[in-house]
Order: sequence, then structure tokens, then C-alpha cells
Amino acid sequence: MRNFKLVLEYDGTRYQGWQRLSDNDNTIQGRVETTLSRILEQEIAIAGSGRTDAGTHARGQVASFHAQTQMSSAAILRQLRRYLPEDIGAVSLEEAAPRFHARLNASMKTYCYRVWNSELPCVFDRRFVHISAQPYDLARMQAAARLFLGEHDFLGFCANKHMKKSTVRRIDAFDIRRVGSELQFTVTGDGFLHHMVRIMVGTLLEIGAGSRRAETIPEILVSRCRAEAGQTVPAKGLCLMEVRYH
Amino acid sequence: MRNFKLVLEYDGTRYQGWQRLSDNDNTIQGRVETTLSRILEQEIAIAGSGRTDAGTHARGQVASFHAQTQMSSAAILRQLRRYLPEDIGAVSLEEAAPRFHARLNASMKTYCYRVWNSELPCVFDRRFVHISAQPYDLARMQAAARLFLGEHDFLGFCANKHMKKSTVRRIDAFDIRRVGSELQFTVTGDGFLHHMVRIMVGTLLEIGAGSRRAETIPEILVSRCRAEAGQTVPAKGLCLMEVRYH
Repeated sequence: MRNFKLVLEYDGTRYQGWQRLSDNDNTIQGRVETTLSRILEQEIAIAGSGRTDAGTHARGQVASFHAQTQMSSAAILRQLRRYLPEDIGAVSLEEAAPRFHARLNASMKTYCYRVWNSELPCVFDRRFVHISAQPYDLARMQAAARLFLGEHDFLGFCANKHMKKSTVRRIDAFDIRRVGSELQFTVTGDGFLHHMVRIMVGTLLEIGAGSRRAETIPEILVSRCRAEAGQTVPAKGLCLMEVRYH
Repeated sequence: MRNFKLVLEYDGTRYQGWQRLSDNDNTIQGRVETTLSRILEQEIAIAGSGRTDAGTHARGQVASFHAQTQMSSAAILRQLRRYLPEDIGAVSLEEAAPRFHARLNASMKTYCYRVWNSELPCVFDRRFVHISAQPYDLARMQAAARLFLGEHDFLGFCANKHMKKSTVRRIDAFDIRRVGSELQFTVTGDGFLHHMVRIMVGTLLEIGAGSRRAETIPEILVSRCRAEAGQTVPAKGLCLMEVRYH
């Protein structure tokens, strides 16, 4: 059996998210598995670096899979590019070490969340931005974002109340920039819980709008209480930019 | 009756083109007329600066319409932004001189055609580029594009063989640039015939690929024979960028 590392990009608008739910469902994983299985003439199961929500996009999602084949990586990649739906792209495919696993070996992930901070987002950007025209204090949000840095228990920023596994994660960078009419939140960490980026951004927006104190962030990191954190911003503003491996 | 000038942008992917064909069809004109008619509670007919093909996009299409209303332009614009489909955007709306007509008064139009000149276009660009990975000689295409400049009879670059009206048009600028993996053809003129931009770009690509002589351009401008010109490139690479009025 050979092992492969596949980098994918997708416009998540039309999909029910990454994770396959059943046969012939409308998920990214499902579409990629079905396509790979046809190309390689065997049942292929892929492991993504993590799930992305329905409507969330990716520029650098990583998946790994095993296959018994004589085909070169380049030939498989060519076929993938031919047969994947137009809104799912195969960026690269290479043979990986036998024990490489896209989720278990992921050491860092970077997400970007885009807020269109004006009345009218360009038609061509609307699938990729959350629209909120109210004024936000950028410096206040930037200062508050720094409170997320380091290792914390992020259960208060997780949509799943009954996490059995550890909810401790490390955030390495959290940058917020204004680019024209857009606010871009870029966060890098060793992993993210369910809806964690969207709840952190929602909390920061409330701080930027003046309806929440920045000090609530360390408070929630201690209380671990989801109800104290901000709203979950919509999935469509979110994009998985990069997954890194040691 | 008041007269209005409306600037629109759209992702043409889902539509049958600009021109309304019947009630409740899936055209840009149809969608905008239906939305305006509901907002203004009267039957509204809009005149576009020109038709765009099915699948062609716009960043600066202009339409004019008459209406009997007390509503301010700003209020109508707000409603348009609320009720137009997500892939049609109202960029601006202003009251115009009584005799302003978006098509009859248009003096210049600029179109951009995008060719993705590599194997893999980014998923996020695929609706907006024509893919052609073969090598093209940029300088050769740039020199050939200059042969279109000035006033000519463009019947040979028109999809409609039986044009009753004049097929003489003036091209003021035709620039071709390489931007990363992309070739961008930007053409400005006083008006364009049916498929004219797409046939001109198709002809230039054949010249850039070495399968056609640049001299065929002046020959076709004289022969006025469509069969001698190049292929019509796909609609999705085309975008109406701007319409200017004196």
C-alpha cells in the first residue's frame, strides 16, 4: 500500500461541510473519496486534517489516503483535476511516508475570517465574507486578540459542550487587519475546536463594537462557559488557509 | 416621470445572459426588472447599455429606467441591495437627465477577458477565467492587438451574419498583460458586435499560439468573413468592466 498527501482547495458554498455523512452525500470528503475511488478503481477513504463546517472554504486543506496502485502521483493528480467538481480543486498530490496521517500529524493550522465592514460587498466576494457594516474599533480588537495567545482550555469557545477529549489548545498568532472595506482575522494554532474560530471572531467583534469588555476573554478561558462568549459568526466568512506538518 | 441611472455588477454564471426573454426567465434584466417593479409598485422596464452573453460577468453594467415615485434614489438603492439575488449587485443609483438612455448615450465600453494560462486555476477564479495551458507569445499578441485599433468594419468578428445595422466600430485601446498565470485582454471601444470581444480574443490566442499569422486580422477586416477569424472563446472569461457616457 502506498500513502498519499493531497492538498485541496474548495468553495464550500454548495456543500454540507467536510465530513462524509453517508453514501452519495454532498460533502467535500464524499466528493473527493468518490472521485478518487473511481480513478484508482478501489474503495478509497481519506483522512482530512480536520472538518470544516458547511459553507466554510479552504485554500489549503490536507487529506491523506492509502491506495494500492501503479499510477504516478502526477497521473492521479491530473485525473483528480479532470473529475473533481469545479468548486473543489486538487492543489498538489505527493507520496507520503507510510505512517503520515493528515489529522494526527498536523502541527499547525491557519484560518482566515473575512468581515465585509461596509454596506455593499462586491458580488464576487459575497460567498466569502460575513457582512457587518457597523463601526469596529480595530486597535481594541487587536489588543483583545492577544488575550487568546498561548495555551488555554478553550471549552468556552467550543460549540460542543460534551467534549470528552482535551479542550486545551495553543494559539500562536492572531492578527487582525483592515484591507479596504474588509476586516481580516488570521489565526494560527495547533488545533481548533468545533466552531472555535467563529466564536472567537464573534467575541472579538462584540469587543470591537463596544458591547463587550476585552477582559471577558480571560474570564471565559477560566469559566469555560460557552454562554458567556460571543455569537458564532457565519461559516461563509471562514477559510482554512494552511495546515503545517513537522 | 423621473429617470434613473443604475450601475450593476453580476456573476453571470447562473444566468441566461442580460436580455429578458420572457416573464420569469432567468436573465439579469428579468431579475432586476422584477425586483424594481416590486420595490416601486409599478411595471419597470430597464434599458441596459448592451446585452451580455449567458455566463458573462459585469463589474460596471449600466441600465436606465423611468419611474413615477416619491422615493429617493438612496432609498431605492437600499431596497435593491436588499432584494436582488446574491450574485447581482447594485453598485450605485442616481437620478439622470430626462433623456438619458443607457444604451443610446453610451460612448465607450471596456471589457476584460481573462485566460488562465496554466494547468490549475484556483477554485475561486474558475467561474471567471477561460483555461488554456498552452504557451502563448505575449509580444506577438500585443503587436497583433494593435491591428484592431481605429475604426473598422467588424462584420468578420461578429456572430450575427445578417446584421442590418452598421457593423463599423472604433477600438480605442487593446491591452494584453500577463498577471501571474493569467493573461488579461482589456479592450475599450465605442461599441461591440455580438461575440465580437470573444472572437477577437480567440483570434489573438491563435496568433499567440503560432497557428495563425497576425496579418489575417487586417485581411478579415477587409473580407468581413467570419469563417476566416478565430474561435469564439467561452463566455465565462468575459467581464463588462465599465460603460462611459459623455
